[in-house]
Amino acid sequence: MIDLDYTNLHKINPKHGLSENEPESKNELLPKFIEKVHSHEQGFYTNIDDSKTIQKIQDFAKTTRAKYSSIIILGIGGSALGSKCLIQGLCHLFQNKLKTSSAPNVHIIDNIDPVLINNLEDIIEYSKTLFIVISKSGSTPETITQYLYFRQKTNDKKLNPKNHFVFITDPEKGFLRETAEKDCITIFNIPKNTAGRFSALTAVGLLPALLAEIDINRIISGAKIMRDKFLNENFNENLPFKLAVIQYLLYEKGKNIDVLMPYSQKLTGLSEWYRQLLAESLGKKGKGITPIRALGATDQHSQLQLYNEGPNDKLIIFMEVEKTDTEITIPNPFPEKKELKFLEKNITFNNLMKIEKVAAEISLTKNDRPNITIKVDSLKEETLGESLMMFMGATAFLGELLQVNAFNQPGVEHTKKIIKQSLLK
Amino acid sequence: MIDLDYTNLHKINPKHGLSENEPESKNELLPKFIEKVHSHEQGFYTNIDDSKTIQKIQDFAKTTRAKYSSIIILGIGGSALGSKCLIQGLCHLFQNKLKTSSAPNVHIIDNIDPVLINNLEDIIEYSKTLFIVISKSGSTPETITQYLYFRQKTNDKKLNPKNHFVFITDPEKGFLRETAEKDCITIFNIPKNTAGRFSALTAVGLLPALLAEIDINRIISGAKIMRDKFLNENFNENLPFKLAVIQYLLYEKGKNIDVLMPYSQKLTGLSEWYRQLLAESLGKKGKGITPIRALGATDQHSQLQLYNEGPNDKLIIFMEVEKTDTEITIPNPFPEKKELKFLEKNITFNNLMKIEKVAAEISLTKNDRPNITIKVDSLKEETLGESLMMFMGATAFLGELLQVNAFNQPGVEHTKKIIKQSLLK
Repeated sequence: MIDLDYTNLHKINPKHGLSENEPESKNELLPKFIEKVHSHEQGFYTNIDDSKTIQKIQDFAKTTRAKYSSIIILGIGGSALGSKCLIQGLCHLFQNKLKTSSAPNVHIIDNIDPVLINNLEDIIEYSKTLFIVISKSGSTPETITQYLYFRQKTNDKKLNPKNHFVFITDPEKGFLRETAEKDCITIFNIPKNTAGRFSALTAVGLLPALLAEIDINRIISGAKIMRDKFLNENFNENLPFKLAVIQYLLYEKGKNIDVLMPYSQKLTGLSEWYRQLLAESLGKKGKGITPIRALGATDQHSQLQLYNEGPNDKLIIFMEVEKTDTEITIPNPFPEKKELKFLEKNITFNNLMKIEKVAAEISLTKNDRPNITIKVDSLKEETLGESLMMFMGATAFLGELLQVNAFNQPGVEHTKKIIKQSLLK
Repeated sequence: MIDLDYTNLHKINPKHGLSENEPESKNELLPKFIEKVHSHEQGFYTNIDDSKTIQKIQDFAKTTRAKYSSIIILGIGGSALGSKCLIQGLCHLFQNKLKTSSAPNVHIIDNIDPVLINNLEDIIEYSKTLFIVISKSGSTPETITQYLYFRQKTNDKKLNPKNHFVFITDPEKGFLRETAEKDCITIFNIPKNTAGRFSALTAVGLLPALLAEIDINRIISGAKIMRDKFLNENFNENLPFKLAVIQYLLYEKGKNIDVLMPYSQKLTGLSEWYRQLLAESLGKKGKGITPIRALGATDQHSQLQLYNEGPNDKLIIFMEVEKTDTEITIPNPFPEKKELKFLEKNITFNNLMKIEKVAAEISLTKNDRPNITIKVDSLKEETLGESLMMFMGATAFLGELLQVNAFNQPGVEHTKKIIKQSLLK
């Protein structure tokens, strides 16, 4: 269950916040906007009905999982951030160090730094490694060169490529698809109507998640709950629209930076994923919201000074997990110490996290800094699925509100062209 | 060796860039500003002369290093980010997974999330673990509660605290100091005149670095090279001042967001450290530059769209490592494929990183987006020491240019007060 609390916006100077009726003033746009979103024919909210692909992912995982000690994901941008979000959010925080786990190690290699590639080689055993190569176009130079490198290595070791590579790519064309067929490498499709940053709920995010032993059906069922809200014409039921309207109205009031600040170590991957979604979808025609990923309580000791007393140009989007299975009481081995008196009440780290978040909220509100809270009842597969769909839906609506096409990325095409030219020079 | 290339600023519309003479127009401020910086009596550029402390760190490391398989750093904000920067920058990227290394595992625990604490316990062996507890005041609630938790655990296991804890804290007062003496726990001082975010070159950053087998003398000697520049009254010799002037002049032209984007996986810790330095030092009185940490080439597939075509409100600070010991040629197991023709020239991943960076630079410049490059000849202890000193010096100068006190943080004190009140309620 996910909910949105924006009451703090009513408590601050309306120049920087929103009156109680302000968000609802946009409610008449909703039916038209849902239609407009449909008109783009994007797959991000329909892919989750593709039970055939989900079955194929499950069948593949069943027959392969036990064979590998390491799963390496080769991809960049939207090809990496979806699985990063799911794995960070739903696996043990030190999964790759756990001796008791049956799950393979997972490393997401989303850069071409030679040091990264070289260091990675020191910790993998090729014969027990599966590389998942992910590229929408099938010809992303960063990902293809990574693939060539590891492919050459497995060739040198006389390993059969079909046992060490899987591709996730365009259903029809591209370099990956062409070479896959000859080598009998398994391929999963990225639907044509789904840009990389909207692909977390396709094989791009789900296959790595399942190999990391995450229950992907539960992610999907959470996403479906949020999709119903996303397509609901009633303002009060449509959480993604409500979020988008708040972001938009505050953007119009000069809050052109949105900080996503979850109070949960496991949600750092979600912030990173959202950062691409927001930046690449809306940063066009001189418009756009600049996303910032922050982390509570950590960044209270790094960024809160700026958020409280710097330029008033930010909307802080807190994210709070209401219930965590792990409850840890803070012990007091020094009961004689006066300054630890507060521990007499059996305070937990869970309480302390909440207290920190409330304190940040109070001080921001007192300083007229707009802040809202996305409340997640507990962090699990369903709520992460809900979160992904909520942010994708909100971003689609923001595209309509800002009058930009949320689904293209003309500003990277130019750079890509220059790279190609330099390579061929 | 570190150098600054800002020629791209001259190539763009002067509304968004700088003419060739513009930075130098501020050169007459330099002698007065150096005096002003001295007047704050801050330790960040004098601590590195404290050879006694450095010797103490070395003696401690010599006698303890071999005893531990894990080093856990408990600290938040400036108590964590300095060591994070040094360890990320100078150790193997998968250090904690390396089977061949003699160095202990290092984990920096800079949050109070119960899930993080619980998960950490699954991978450490208390009898072989050293906890470094770092708090400037000696009473930061996040860090003290972490300490109490792990202290209780070691008590339960009948481990002698002096063998499992080290404190880095205020030289005179605070909870940590008081309890240390009774338990014979080793203490290192954080000099009184050094705020957390300026403490990377004290025991705060250096002790964890040395325990991770980094040569801290080389870091110090790099820092000293840059300090000489920082105190040089000649504009052309003073790299930190030059950087600060560029940031300031562009801030005055509406570039109130600074993106630090190194093209090096190992410099992600530096970006995170700088993010606190800039935000907390300058975010005051409604002024301040909002820092963003980005990573090349990865973020070309996440943020470049926004940087190229979104609001023109950012200065992109690239960081480029010119020479890397690790050179990897991209092999071509598919010589028959036309689209891989570019690999005939024995291109390396190193070349590809450079090509990507140049392409980003060209497209930004073409779009009138201000961008500069900090050039690092090679990534090593000395240049990381230089970098830290460069950014600290530039930030001190920025405080003078923006007329804010770079060395306090009034905007977090209020939040801290609310936390204390909530705890005592």
